[in-house]
Amino acid sequence: MKIAVINEISAADKNADILKALAGRGHEILNLGNTSGSDLPGLLYIHTGLMSALLLNFNLVDFVVGGCGTGLGYLNSVMQYPGVFCGHLLTPLDAFLFARINAGNCVSLALNQGYGWAGDVNLRMLFDALFTSETGVGYPPQRAEPQRQARNLLKQVSSATHRSMTEILLALPEEVLRPALTFPAFRPLLEQAAPADAGLCTALEKIL
Amino acid sequence: MKIAVINEISAADKNADILKALAGRGHEILNLGNTSGSDLPGLLYIHTGLMSALLLNFNLVDFVVGGCGTGLGYLNSVMQYPGVFCGHLLTPLDAFLFARINAGNCVSLALNQGYGWAGDVNLRMLFDALFTSETGVGYPPQRAEPQRQARNLLKQVSSATHRSMTEILLALPEEVLRPALTFPAFRPLLEQAAPADAGLCTALEKIL
Amino acid sequence: MKIAVINEISAADKNADILKALAGRGHEILNLGNTSGSDLPGLLYIHTGLMSALLLNFNLVDFVVGGCGTGLGYLNSVMQYPGVFCGHLLTPLDAFLFARINAGNCVSLALNQGYGWAGDVNLRMLFDALFTSETGVGYPPQRAEPQRQARNLLKQVSSATHRSMTEILLALPEEVLRPALTFPAFRPLLEQAAPADAGLCTALEKIL
Amino acid sequence: MKIAVINEISAADKNADILKALAGRGHEILNLGNTSGSDLPGLLYIHTGLMSALLLNFNLVDFVVGGCGTGLGYLNSVMQYPGVFCGHLLTPLDAFLFARINAGNCVSLALNQGYGWAGDVNLRMLFDALFTSETGVGYPPQRAEPQRQARNLLKQVSSATHRSMTEILLALPEEVLRPALTFPAFRPLLEQAAPADAGLCTALEKIL
Repeated sequence: MKIAVINEISAADKNADILKALAGRGHEILNLGNTSGSDLPGLLYIHTGLMSALLLNFNLVDFVVGGCGTGLGYLNSVMQYPGVFCGHLLTPLDAFLFARINAGNCVSLALNQGYGWAGDVNLRMLFDALFTSETGVGYPPQRAEPQRQARNLLKQVSSATHRSMTEILLALPEEVLRPALTFPAFRPLLEQAAPADAGLCTALEKIL
Repeated sequence: MKIAVINEISAADKNADILKALAGRGHEILNLGNTSGSDLPGLLYIHTGLMSALLLNFNLVDFVVGGCGTGLGYLNSVMQYPGVFCGHLLTPLDAFLFARINAGNCVSLALNQGYGWAGDVNLRMLFDALFTSETGVGYPPQRAEPQRQARNLLKQVSSATHRSMTEILLALPEEVLRPALTFPAFRPLLEQAAPADAGLCTALEKIL
Repeated sequence: MKIAVINEISAADKNADILKALAGRGHEILNLGNTSGSDLPGLLYIHTGLMSALLLNFNLVDFVVGGCGTGLGYLNSVMQYPGVFCGHLLTPLDAFLFARINAGNCVSLALNQGYGWAGDVNLRMLFDALFTSETGVGYPPQRAEPQRQARNLLKQVSSATHRSMTEILLALPEEVLRPALTFPAFRPLLEQAAPADAGLCTALEKIL
Repeated sequence: MKIAVINEISAADKNADILKALAGRGHEILNLGNTSGSDLPGLLYIHTGLMSALLLNFNLVDFVVGGCGTGLGYLNSVMQYPGVFCGHLLTPLDAFLFARINAGNCVSLALNQGYGWAGDVNLRMLFDALFTSETGVGYPPQRAEPQRQARNLLKQVSSATHRSMTEILLALPEEVLRPALTFPAFRPLLEQAAPADAGLCTALEKIL
């Protein structure tokens, strides 16, 4: 699986913990946001949310690991976009249930609130429970089928309620777009994807 | 403040706890979803998410208290819509920070996972921290201004990424719309609002 | 390892969850307390604490898994006795740290507070982290040696502050002793141990 | 109420947070342990446990607030002594239940694990719930009487299982005693109490 890690500046000093906790699982990890508290320019959750949504909507990654101080800013930001299904996961049990019931493609971590001693160990156990072969099997097991139906309906709702990513790119304010699209670690990936997508291509040309 | 409580069927037996925890604060409480585990018809988070979004977008309430087994299904459902800013709140501290930093208009509660002895007391303490005169003052205090800017940008993002509620109503699948719009406790409120909104009026006529 | 499970009556309906979560690890499990909410006689944490201490002090088991509604009643009860080092463990991370830092011989679980959906899964993940080959290795690793010294001092403190188990048995009130010592699932184990210990033998004769 | 705060060195940088969270309640606060991470000499939970027990047993304070990295080291240390009834409290709900059910005289805080952003706010809300006029009223209310009985039995157990504090002082290893009894902020309090207690007086003379 291809997993992007995207940190905003407020919790960027936890970036190394996330990478360590994700390592050794056979996944390809792309580290695309702030990597330390002194990183420049500093990204806000407004930006990391957009970056995450672009990665998922243009199929550049399979999963995004994001977060912020409490997890709720990034969550509200990334959930503004179509095709994003995001968990706010604090414990391994949260991850166990989210994988089985919601089977989303994004997680928002709380990286300052409640993040203390052995926070990295908690992340490792959380990812152990999240990246499982039992994704989408349902919990409790007898609820598997209605939960599968709910996930399918949720995807239809997401399509019905959102504009297309191209429309969105053309409508977003510049102070959301520019810091996100031009972020050094992120821009090359996006430019590589653009030629295959006329809308993205036009939008990027107009913006950048 | 006018607060709607909307429970889906899986955690409807916690509805009474929520009402009790909200009582005595001087708010007007509208109880619009399932009220017990044997309630019929049973609503899914797919439905309660739409109901919540309608209430907020047509200014029928100021705040919505929802939830589901883990809190993450309802969260992902209600966040599909414009103008919804939702916290996934488990503890009083979560509520304290969400009120100050995010100042949203919706909360998703975990009503089966981790909900045991004195769960109602926890809800009361959570609401004590959530419904505060310090909404939006920022945390830590010196971050008040950038956090205020981020909230404003988030609202702009929400407008840029979503269709209008009228367009959405016309695009949603019938199995999402009908159980939500026709729910006995909810329908009268919606029909009362419709005459003042041409789009809602047309949509309801077409659907119902 | 020989592990005793001892539930008091208030949370005895979680006994099956504990057994299931402990299964399949190659440990010998002795289920010695209440096994369902309707079990008779009902044990209080006052009794399960004494039972646990007897098992540990007479080397009848290596580890005791106990608990109560919040975990704090049993914890305060079992910690009254010599040679008991008990964790109050709610999450897998708690267990990870307790195993490495404290390396105790007892755990007190919260079995009503916060115990909801998938509580059994949380217990399984908690025991995964607790029963590890890395018991006592310290955390963070560079603190291994002072933590080992602290554990050794703690054992000396426990000896210095407590009477012997034989003295204790002779001093405890009858309403603590009798329900504990005569509990059907527990008594045979104790009687089997008595002949090898003159003090225990005398105490049991006097009491029973 | 007279409340002692006693931090060991590992979490002494949280001492200021604890004092702030306790302030403004009309209690007399005695700050008797390490007050910063660079404080000398550094106390271990082995020492802070003994100091706490002396304060409670010689009626020098009504309540002790202690803790360590996870809360479990100090808990196991202070619980070695007679007359100490200690909660391991992480959330306001923990405190609400502990006050009503256990009505103890000591709390052990987790000051590194899970201690992040707004940890001081969590402490304030925790103390709000802990220091209540409803101490010992029971939870749920219909369990008030058996819970009161259990607390009374627990006190009897504590007397039956422990030596007297004077015996204990004479039996403890020097490396436990000396750093605790000679700690600059603590020693004067103890010496003031000694003349009124022959056993303590003799023990201190022998040790110091």
